[in-house]
Amino acid sequence: MIIGRVYGSVVSTHKLDGLVGYKFMQVQCIENGALVDKFLTAVDGVGAGIGEDVIITTGSGARKALGKDDAPVDAVIVGILDTKQC
Amino acid sequence: MIIGRVYGSVVSTHKLDGLVGYKFMQVQCIENGALVDKFLTAVDGVGAGIGEDVIITTGSGARKALGKDDAPVDAVIVGILDTKQC
Amino acid sequence: MIIGRVYGSVVSTHKLDGLVGYKFMQVQCIENGALVDKFLTAVDGVGAGIGEDVIITTGSGARKALGKDDAPVDAVIVGILDTKQC
Amino acid sequence: MIIGRVYGSVVSTHKLDGLVGYKFMQVQCIENGALVDKFLTAVDGVGAGIGEDVIITTGSGARKALGKDDAPVDAVIVGILDTKQC
Amino acid sequence: MIIGRVYGSVVSTHKLDGLVGYKFMQVQCIENGALVDKFLTAVDGVGAGIGEDVIITTGSGARKALGKDDAPVDAVIVGILDTKQC
Repeated sequence: MIIGRVYGSVVSTHKLDGLVGYKFMQVQCIENGALVDKFLTAVDGVGAGIGEDVIITTGSGARKALGKDDAPVDAVIVGILDTKQC
Repeated sequence: MIIGRVYGSVVSTHKLDGLVGYKFMQVQCIENGALVDKFLTAVDGVGAGIGEDVIITTGSGARKALGKDDAPVDAVIVGILDTKQC
Repeated sequence: MIIGRVYGSVVSTHKLDGLVGYKFMQVQCIENGALVDKFLTAVDGVGAGIGEDVIITTGSGARKALGKDDAPVDAVIVGILDTKQC
Repeated sequence: MIIGRVYGSVVSTHKLDGLVGYKFMQVQCIENGALVDKFLTAVDGVGAGIGEDVIITTGSGARKALGKDDAPVDAVIVGILDTKQC
Repeated sequence: MIIGRVYGSVVSTHKLDGLVGYKFMQVQCIENGALVDKFLTAVDGVGAGIGEDVIITTGSGARKALGKDDAPVDAVIVGILDTKQC
């Protein structure tokens, strides 16, 4: 799993039907208690907001997170951390 | 998911039957609002054009994007972003 | 598989139901007998403690480790090493 | 997908039965029209030769490329590019 | 697939039941005929010994290599190369 901080989102009106209703959050990775120069975009699965530290599941596990085996995704925010990591 | 900008395409006449009809787009990754030195090739799933910023799903989720569980692909453009990222 | 040392854990109260009961351990990777500047977070599958050297399975194999094909995870600690690696 | 140039092959007589008959090609990656310092080995799915530029599918999609869901592979050459990339 | 040289092994007595009987080999990657600063741990599927150059399958293909769809692994040595790579 990846730990990171949500810093923004992107909007795509023209997208596959299987993605309708999902919010794409931009996340900066946190490693060893510090923000690092790694970034990814993940579907929000838990109502995460900008500035929150989250945990992300990637790969086929991301589809499991959404409960939709046909969702064309590869990264989903699956939890919000109780404590800021930095 | 990966955010990037389409900058070209490649053509392969001699390819597996399962790839016939797909267009292979070349994408430069965008991280934190800037084009970075990372590149990938993805099947176009949404009619993306050169210069557009897109969102890409990789791994087994790419096959879900095409709606073909047997497609021999690992990256598909699944949406066009409404706003240029840089 | 990845070899690493457990150095902490993170808590997420607000998470997907499919993650309830799992403990998220923070691991620093070990390569060639030395701790390196790579970090990941993995669900604990074996009762690993801080300071222990562990082996981690990533990707779809992580779900196999938990014996739950629908678990939204991508990394699980599957064993504790008998000998410290460094 | 990965774009690259075939520069060699490796032979393994002592291998799993599920790999018998496959040819393992060594590929140097091409990014943005230049050979880069990244390398991988992929099963040949299209009769690619040394010096040709190819497209490679990785992960579970590689098994789809071979049409064998039990093939123990993770990268397959799925097409030969019509035009040299550099 | 990854090409590398076996340089050691690790032992884990306290591990998941699904891993009993497997040997975990430490491998240094070989790229373009030279050992590089990349390392991984893989289950031995072919009886590889220290010093031998091997080919490794990662991801879900690793489970196919072991012929056990529920094995919690993500990397397996699937062949021994006939010729040393460096």
